[in-house]
Amino acid sequence: MTENTRFKALTFDVFGTVVDWRTSIAREAEALLGDAKGLSRDWPAFADRWRERYQPAMSKVRDGELPWTRLDDLHRMNLDELLVEFDINGLTEAETDNLNRAWHRLDPWPDAVAGLTRLKTGYIIATLSNGNVALMVNLAKRGGLPWDAILGAEVVRHYKPQPEAYLLTADYLGLKPEQCLMVAAHNDDLIAAAGCGFGTAFVARPTERGPNQTIDLEPTRDFDFVARDFVDLAAQLGT
Amino acid sequence: MTENTRFKALTFDVFGTVVDWRTSIAREAEALLGDAKGLSRDWPAFADRWRERYQPAMSKVRDGELPWTRLDDLHRMNLDELLVEFDINGLTEAETDNLNRAWHRLDPWPDAVAGLTRLKTGYIIATLSNGNVALMVNLAKRGGLPWDAILGAEVVRHYKPQPEAYLLTADYLGLKPEQCLMVAAHNDDLIAAAGCGFGTAFVARPTERGPNQTIDLEPTRDFDFVARDFVDLAAQLGT
Repeated sequence: MTENTRFKALTFDVFGTVVDWRTSIAREAEALLGDAKGLSRDWPAFADRWRERYQPAMSKVRDGELPWTRLDDLHRMNLDELLVEFDINGLTEAETDNLNRAWHRLDPWPDAVAGLTRLKTGYIIATLSNGNVALMVNLAKRGGLPWDAILGAEVVRHYKPQPEAYLLTADYLGLKPEQCLMVAAHNDDLIAAAGCGFGTAFVARPTERGPNQTIDLEPTRDFDFVARDFVDLAAQLGT
Repeated sequence: MTENTRFKALTFDVFGTVVDWRTSIAREAEALLGDAKGLSRDWPAFADRWRERYQPAMSKVRDGELPWTRLDDLHRMNLDELLVEFDINGLTEAETDNLNRAWHRLDPWPDAVAGLTRLKTGYIIATLSNGNVALMVNLAKRGGLPWDAILGAEVVRHYKPQPEAYLLTADYLGLKPEQCLMVAAHNDDLIAAAGCGFGTAFVARPTERGPNQTIDLEPTRDFDFVARDFVDLAAQLGT
């Protein structure tokens, strides 16, 4: 199959689509709080509850209740509440900061690096994540994610699914929205991107939310591409 | 030599430091205007005159005379004047745009990819250029420059040598200025970076401005590193 000539850039959701946040956060919490501090908690639930605070925190920024706040700082506000909820006390500032930066140490899904490496041969590959630049750079360095550019929310000062997040990212790349293909494991992200004129590629991550995941198991719209994983997407896109 | 533990990121000037703009622009102009249009001009001089308009155009933005304007658009304003100066008429809009995008097709210096590839093993490597994101991404794709992040003027909306260009780039990386090492072939860029707390590495590019270059042949201050080229810098930095 030859390369698709419509799309010049592939823009990627990252949390859940490229990296496995749940397993990684549970592992980090268990290491830093369980192993190091002797605490016993349900660490996957700790990860889930942290992630549940993600959209509400960003909504405060989207709604103007908070000024622009990078995701590292939203994660920290959420973590401070989470530690109370899980009755975890007595961490030093350095320990809490290190735990917060667990989001910089998320593992890629097994196919991610191989798929991105192939896709990069034919297209610009860029992040279009709500994660901040430092977080994205550190994930990439640690996991070997070969991005051409780190873009997304912090650069454009708008959290997805606000249209500006997609439109201004395309503009930074010097491209029309129609020349960009949004890749995500989340229907709502792709629907928002399509509303801005982006092409869409759904890659299912059926264990992102653990073994009992109920949403985003299947595409809910007729997206341009539906792929099993990034290697399959690379094949469909002719790379 | 082991890695330097002070610096986490190396930030690079690009035009002249990483890529050879003069030879590349002269080649592109000769191809698009000489070969294709039968025009005879001094093409290295054409490149020089285009570049001479670079700082004055950015000064208009720095001084507030122009609102934020990305470098592609400044290059185009300058090109329109340059074509008059060189008595070149009758180009279509597509031809003029393609010529303007010659700045997206600059060749790396021979040591750049090898040096950056080594440096990337030990440090975050990011652009801190006045070039806009699309231009930087296209240079990198074409030349194989393995950046971890494309940052600099357009992302922070300040042209070097304004302090914000350096300080906000470090902040995007989640680093203190002291953790960043500015790499440039230009004394004034390094002096400005040092004033913001950055470390400094001078890499001479003695033919950047052609065979009769008179400036930036030597470091004019006691910079942290002085290297012959990027491979030498990689060795000095323990990678």
